[in-house]
Amino acid sequence: MSDLPARVFIKEEGPREGFQIERKPIPTVDKVRLIDALSATGLEFIQITSFVNPVRVPGLADAEAVVAGFTPREGVRYAGLWLNQQGLLRAIATERLHLEGKLTLYGSNAFLKRNQNRTPEQQLAAQPDLIRMYQAHGIPVRTGFVTAAFGCNFQGEVEPERVVSLVGQMRSIAREAGEDLSLIGLGDTMAWANPQSIRRVVGMVQDANPDVELSLHLHDTRGLGLANAYAGLSMGVRHFDAAVGGLGGCPFAAHAGAAGNICTEDFVLMCEEMGIGTGVDLEKLADCARLAESIIGHPLPGKVKSGGSLRALRTRIKAG
Amino acid sequence: MSDLPARVFIKEEGPREGFQIERKPIPTVDKVRLIDALSATGLEFIQITSFVNPVRVPGLADAEAVVAGFTPREGVRYAGLWLNQQGLLRAIATERLHLEGKLTLYGSNAFLKRNQNRTPEQQLAAQPDLIRMYQAHGIPVRTGFVTAAFGCNFQGEVEPERVVSLVGQMRSIAREAGEDLSLIGLGDTMAWANPQSIRRVVGMVQDANPDVELSLHLHDTRGLGLANAYAGLSMGVRHFDAAVGGLGGCPFAAHAGAAGNICTEDFVLMCEEMGIGTGVDLEKLADCARLAESIIGHPLPGKVKSGGSLRALRTRIKAG
Repeated sequence: MSDLPARVFIKEEGPREGFQIERKPIPTVDKVRLIDALSATGLEFIQITSFVNPVRVPGLADAEAVVAGFTPREGVRYAGLWLNQQGLLRAIATERLHLEGKLTLYGSNAFLKRNQNRTPEQQLAAQPDLIRMYQAHGIPVRTGFVTAAFGCNFQGEVEPERVVSLVGQMRSIAREAGEDLSLIGLGDTMAWANPQSIRRVVGMVQDANPDVELSLHLHDTRGLGLANAYAGLSMGVRHFDAAVGGLGGCPFAAHAGAAGNICTEDFVLMCEEMGIGTGVDLEKLADCARLAESIIGHPLPGKVKSGGSLRALRTRIKAG
Repeated sequence: MSDLPARVFIKEEGPREGFQIERKPIPTVDKVRLIDALSATGLEFIQITSFVNPVRVPGLADAEAVVAGFTPREGVRYAGLWLNQQGLLRAIATERLHLEGKLTLYGSNAFLKRNQNRTPEQQLAAQPDLIRMYQAHGIPVRTGFVTAAFGCNFQGEVEPERVVSLVGQMRSIAREAGEDLSLIGLGDTMAWANPQSIRRVVGMVQDANPDVELSLHLHDTRGLGLANAYAGLSMGVRHFDAAVGGLGGCPFAAHAGAAGNICTEDFVLMCEEMGIGTGVDLEKLADCARLAESIIGHPLPGKVKSGGSLRALRTRIKAG
């Protein structure tokens, strides 16, 4: 357990996740308010919206307005999500976003079929086209992502060997196209991971790829989010996705499988308490979680926003 | 991380914790319904009520009625809590409870003062009297408990060396009175622990006491409950307190310090997924969590009751 990193890097996905899943419309001005508040916490990467079909996802129809609205802060990368070239072109057109290319393969064929209506062969074949699309726009491709890397609601367990193989395939495809993946993301998309499977899969991918960094995208659907994150930290993983307040999933709405990422401020507290730097001001971040809660109008699952930080208590104790 | 135990033993504290903290009165019949449902899950130890001053805690005034009401199931120990001889005598008088004596010392003098209005010397001096009281009633004293073993809202960090010393003192006191402590409980009463401090303190107490079992009582106030539990498991700890649904603490009421134990069904899922036996039927336990939620009338923090178990998904996948 001595492999804890000295510093972690957090991709804040709360705004995009939160704005995507909520049923009641959220005013654009509130979205921008949350993004600007998050910018002031020390977070270095914030995914702020998604460029998807506004007819299918009306809550994201204001993607361009959100991007136009926030106040950029130095040192913060603001990112968007897209699912196809049309979405990418919209993101490029804003001229305000940090753009990164990403390859994606699936640990589960059943989920790939449901999510993309593709066979594994079709998904593989689509990756070189994706790289060419990014290259045509001068966008670097440095990340490979394995969706459902630990298990799948429709197929069951995913073998670690399969994940290692998918990572190898992505790296080959990238290399053949003149790109070099430096970050491999493992997604526990449907919350099948446990701390031991995290350690096993991360360990095997690291052994086969000692020259890349790993990133974990963990869902808290079954409550194991932070335990899994700790397991990742104990293996030296330094990159984590998270969502302020636990935005993007409400444990009380019974939408299994859709529950959110690990909660950013709870993760930050865990890291800081173990001496792992995050660059984030936890009190400001907890304020953001409370702001998010007030914007969406229902309780969010994060704990620190009500339980409080320990640093605040230490300061109070010192002051007597 | 190869020290995971093959089996864990869970003390279910949900009924007592839940009935204690809720503001609106809970009908005795509902309390009994939850206890009987929990009895059918495979849980082997259920703390069902607390014998405290009914004037100070009106919600627990029906302690005797609760004890009289449940239907005992073979293999389940039903326990109560008491804070003084008067409470113990009430528990004895029910003739239906499993009775165990326990010694308690405090990691934090400030918390001891607030909670018991005692100095450390007074608390130490009270322990032999406690043993004599138990011995007078033929009740074994096998457990020693350290309250606030990881930190305190009023005093800050607690040094692991202090915890080791307290455990040694308790064992000496017990031995001098002809008792032998076989279980040492460490309480993260105010949620100051993190996975690394769990490993450090547990490791030091184990090293100094290789002949006793450890037990962890973890609060989830800051979201680290299950990560801390995993850290304990990774050190071989086999005894855990937990509360169904996360009863006893609502993360949305901002009563910092009062938030509940780790959620039993989420903990059971984590254990079972890592191959650690619990003896508990997770589906039945999740039903209990939903029952608890319907009884108290507000959302509980546990995740599995809405996110679902993986075993249920595996069964569905197998059935095609």
